[in-house]
This record gives sequence, C-alpha cells and structure tokens, in this order.
Amino acid sequence: MTAEIVDTSITGMTGRVRRRVDDLLSAFLDARRPPVGDPDVADGYRLLREFVVEGGKRIRPLLCYWGWRGAGGTAPQEERAVSVGAALELYHAGLLIHDDVMDGSELRRGRPTIHRGLAGAPRWAGAETFGRSAAILLGVLAQAWADELLADAAAGDVPGRAARELFNRMRTEVVTGQYLDILAHTRADADVERALTVIRYKTARYTVERPLQIGGALAGAPPALLEAYSRFGLPLGEAFQLRDDVLGVFGDPAVTGKPVLDDLREGKRTVLMAHAYARARGPELDLLRTWHGAPDLDERRAAELRQVIVDTGALAEVEELIALRAGQALEALRECDIAPEAAQALAVLTERLTRRVR
Amino acid sequence: MTAEIVDTSITGMTGRVRRRVDDLLSAFLDARRPPVGDPDVADGYRLLREFVVEGGKRIRPLLCYWGWRGAGGTAPQEERAVSVGAALELYHAGLLIHDDVMDGSELRRGRPTIHRGLAGAPRWAGAETFGRSAAILLGVLAQAWADELLADAAAGDVPGRAARELFNRMRTEVVTGQYLDILAHTRADADVERALTVIRYKTARYTVERPLQIGGALAGAPPALLEAYSRFGLPLGEAFQLRDDVLGVFGDPAVTGKPVLDDLREGKRTVLMAHAYARARGPELDLLRTWHGAPDLDERRAAELRQVIVDTGALAEVEELIALRAGQALEALRECDIAPEAAQALAVLTERLTRRVR
Repeated sequence: MTAEIVDTSITGMTGRVRRRVDDLLSAFLDARRPPVGDPDVADGYRLLREFVVEGGKRIRPLLCYWGWRGAGGTAPQEERAVSVGAALELYHAGLLIHDDVMDGSELRRGRPTIHRGLAGAPRWAGAETFGRSAAILLGVLAQAWADELLADAAAGDVPGRAARELFNRMRTEVVTGQYLDILAHTRADADVERALTVIRYKTARYTVERPLQIGGALAGAPPALLEAYSRFGLPLGEAFQLRDDVLGVFGDPAVTGKPVLDDLREGKRTVLMAHAYARARGPELDLLRTWHGAPDLDERRAAELRQVIVDTGALAEVEELIALRAGQALEALRECDIAPEAAQALAVLTERLTRRVR
Repeated sequence: MTAEIVDTSITGMTGRVRRRVDDLLSAFLDARRPPVGDPDVADGYRLLREFVVEGGKRIRPLLCYWGWRGAGGTAPQEERAVSVGAALELYHAGLLIHDDVMDGSELRRGRPTIHRGLAGAPRWAGAETFGRSAAILLGVLAQAWADELLADAAAGDVPGRAARELFNRMRTEVVTGQYLDILAHTRADADVERALTVIRYKTARYTVERPLQIGGALAGAPPALLEAYSRFGLPLGEAFQLRDDVLGVFGDPAVTGKPVLDDLREGKRTVLMAHAYARARGPELDLLRTWHGAPDLDERRAAELRQVIVDTGALAEVEELIALRAGQALEALRECDIAPEAAQALAVLTERLTRRVR
C-alpha cells in the first residue's frame, strides 16, 4: 500500500486545481459527440476541444477556486467549484475564438487561431469566409456548452443561483466591454479615460472580479466578502490588462504566444497607446498616426513606435500605474477576511499576473 | 363596467399568444440597461431590441405554446410557456444576426441587416469590419440573454429541467447544422442527401420539433407524446425549409423581406439547387456552374437560372416533396393524443408554413 502524497503548498494546490479543471474539461468535451456523422464536422469539434484543453492559463478557474476556498468552501463541494471554474474557462475559449475573428489575428497560444486553422492554406476562393464563419459557430458552441456546464453545477440551491446571477452579469459586461472596445477603433482620438473603461469591463470585472465572486457566492459568501473581492479584483484586473498591453508591444513572442507586431498593426486602443498619443508632439505624433494600425507595419517601424512609447514617458506611466494597482490589490487583499491559504494563493496570483517578465 | 371579450377562435388565441410574447420580449429588453454609459453602446442595445421586437413571425414561440397546450398545459402556467417561447425567439434573433454576418446578407425582414445597419454608409475604412464585429457581439448578447430568460422560466422543477435539456440539445443541433451548411459551400458537388441532412438539423429539429417538444416537456408530456411531436415536427420542418428555399428563388421580396437574388448570389446549397444540379445537362449545367453563387449575378441571368430550375423539373420535384411532407405531418398530427384546440392550431400552422404563396 502506498499513501497518497498530498502537496499542501500553494503551488501544489494550484497545480492540482489546474489538473482537475483540465480533466473535467477533457471529459466534458469528449462526451460532446456531433449529432451528425460528418468527418469535417467531427474535425471542427476536435479543433475546439484541442483549443480548450491544450492551451490557456486557467486564470479564471483558479480565481473562482480561491474565491470559493476564501469564502469557506470545503472539500465535499470542491467538484462544484471546479465545474463552475471549468465553465468559465470554456466560456472564455468561445470569447477568444470570436475575439480573434474580430481582430483578424493569426496566432493564439503559439498556434494558428481557430479561423486561420479552419481556412487552411488559402487555396479556394471561400477559404477565409469559411474560416471566419466556422469560427463564429464554434465560439457560439463553446459558449452554449459553458452555459450547460455552469447551469448543471450551479443548479438546485441559493448559492448556486447567486453564482449563476453573477455569471449572467459577467457575460453582459464583457460583451459590452468588447463592444466599447471596437467602438474605440471607429473614433478618431485615443482617449485614456475611455481605454480605462474598456479595461474595467473587458478585463477587470470579467477576468478577476467576477470569477472570484462567482466562486465566493458558490460557497455562500456574504455581501461584505463579495465587496471585498471586488476591491481586490478590480485593481488587480486593471493591472493585469495593463501588463498584457505592455507585453503586446514589448513582450517576447515565445512567451506571449502571439506575434509581437499584432497589437501595433491592429492599432489597439490601449491605455499605453492613449498615453503615447496624449504626450507625443510633432514628428513623434506623426509617426504614431501613420504607423499605429498600419497593416504593413514592419519591424523597423515598430521599433520606432516602441521608442516613441518609451521617449514620451508613456511606458513609465503605465508601469507606475501597474505598480500602483497591484499595490492597491494587495492592500485590499490584506483586509479580506478569508482563509489564510486563499489569501496566500491570491497574493501569488497577483504577483504572477502583474510582474514585469513572464 | 365592460366585460372583456375573449376571442376563443384559433386565430384569436394565436394572436393573443403573439402579443404576450411581444410584450414579454419588450419588457425583458427594456430592462437590459448597458453597464456603461456610452451613447453608441446604448444605440447598439436599441438596435438589438428593435430587431427582436419589431420583426419575426414568432413561429417558435407559437409552436412551443401549442406544444404546451397540447400536452395539457393550463392557464396558471401560461406565463411560463410564453416566457420559454420568448426565449426561443430571442435565441433565434441572435442566430439570425450571425447568419447574416456569415452570408454577408444586406436585408432581413425588409430592413438592413444588423451588421449592415451598424456599418452605415461606408465612409471610413473600418466600417465593414466594425459592422461585422458589432453584429457578432450583439448576436452573442441575444443568445446569452435568451439563456437567462429560459433558465429563469424553466428553473425549479422536473418539467423545467426537461425543457432546458431539450433546449441545450437544440442549440448544439442547430449550430452543428449550420456548420454542415457552410461546409457544403466548400465542397465541389451539390448533394441532395447532404442538403436534406442540413435541413433536418438547421430547420426541422430547430424550428419545429424542438420548440414543440420544449413546450410539451414544460407541461410534463410523457415520452410517447414527445415522440409523436417529433413525427409531426420533422416532416413539417422539412416542408417549411423547402418552401423557404423555393421562396428564396421565386418569392416576392415584398413578402419575404429579402432581395430575391440573395439566395442565388450566395450560391445557397439548397435541396432545390441540388436537384437542379443533379438533373441539368450541357448548357444548363454550365449556366448553373457559372452563375449560381456569382456575386455579380443580375436579374437577367437569375431569370435564366430560374428557367433551368423549372425546366429540369427540380421545382416540381421540390413542390411534390413539400406536399408529401406536409401530408405526413398532418397524418402524424391526427395520431397525436392532444387537446383538440392544439391539434387545430397546429394544422393551421402547418398550412401557413408550407403553402405555395404567402
């Protein structure tokens, strides 16, 4: 007989939760058989499964889990917290698939995006259209399945209903945040305040605050704790997105999994770029206006754009804001009345989501 | 004092159900306020509301309602049947918005499609992209809200759970049917069998069988009745889609609400077209191959295509199939053990959904 060795370190527990989420997603997706026997349809299902199972940092399931533990969730209910976290991950996969269609992105997690993969080498006239349409459908399917998974896990009692209510709010918020984001692209100016509003809905609430609260609600957290999670989650989420924006311009593609020119080529209206626009003058401003968002941007011009972002002080400003928000998050965390291992895990996550190099 | 006059004719009852569905959708959508105070976001919400409230034939809510009545649903529970029907309609709105993005359609229900309306007069470079992206998001929002509406209405008991289970199956089926449909466009041949499979999932199950069964389940219908609904719903749904395909080529745009050249220009792989391809020879086949799916198809060429469809006997074949399936549906309906007013209403619907001229 061998005794099972349970790793009770934060890293050990976090790893175990990740594996449980992965296992649950695999089993759930394996059980989804296409209702029609067509090999190409089966390929589509398989592609979706791979996208969900083989990639992703599981940030939302982890936050959901620790939000649940923090609110007093105990072992017999762990399956439930893991299922709800897995539902958040599946929903997120659907959202990313659509995001990539909307942005026309080529790579995600170091692989071709779903719509690119489905289009294949563009041999026939309709390849691009097929890829985009098929990706819209697979994204919709992922979101519908996420909903099934969540509804089943959250059914039957008051905490479940509270978690579901927060999930509903989260969906409306994130889609509205994305809507605001694409609207920003139709507007002539890059506005810092507007970019911060987009971050709040598209990331801060969606990626951090709501997953934590959903986990908390599932363990029957009182309103005061849900509010405390909000005070921790919003600044952390903001710092996380700001870090992501910086990495989108200055990051290592081997780490970020996407080409380093994508964000600049797409002309993303990030807080970082809004600061650069607000501070640039003369030739620097001309350079931004000409090359930020230019599909034919090359590495040399990108290097010049990066230099403008540094020289105007926009990068320093954003780094300062990240440090400030991360600090606020940690301060709020100290005031949360939660189990010590949850507080510790959330502090580790804060560091991981906001640190300068990943 | 005036006594309320209740119209107990089938037309009267159907009209009343439609109004209740409309009122419920209006109230539900009015209550959805954007979480951010941006006038353009509010415009997007308003556009979605108008699309849902001001158009649509309410086929699915009516089938759901009569499926519920047929299974013995009674007045105190009517609100529930109406809510679930409204959820089906809202889900359908989201699906149509995505469908129009995928097909690149310009008109729907006699108005610009959502993505066209949002793109506006294409003045700036990103107008088309913005319209498509915004439409993807509004479609996702409609589907998420449909899910909320359905989950609330179906919560709390065994019949509700059964209805929700059928709704889940329906979502997977319809999205998979659409996937099969866009796959058909990537294939060289137009195959009658494959086109019939697409119809089965994309329309017959989705539009008729499942709404009926969902309503039935909500009233606690036994498995035998759900199967009877299936025997009625599948042929009716097939006949309905075949009729829609015929109208898409031969219909009056003032009635169909969409340009009569759309289906031919898009190169839709309908059963009608598959029959035409299978029967055409020589110059007729060349004409089909050249002009079916040609974006620059004009009215003169379209008239020639229609002539081929008639001359090959494809139209007659499809009309015969419609009549056959409508007959099978009515025969199955006679064998359904349901309340007489429900049987009568479903017979009226059968006629309305399959008749030659609308």
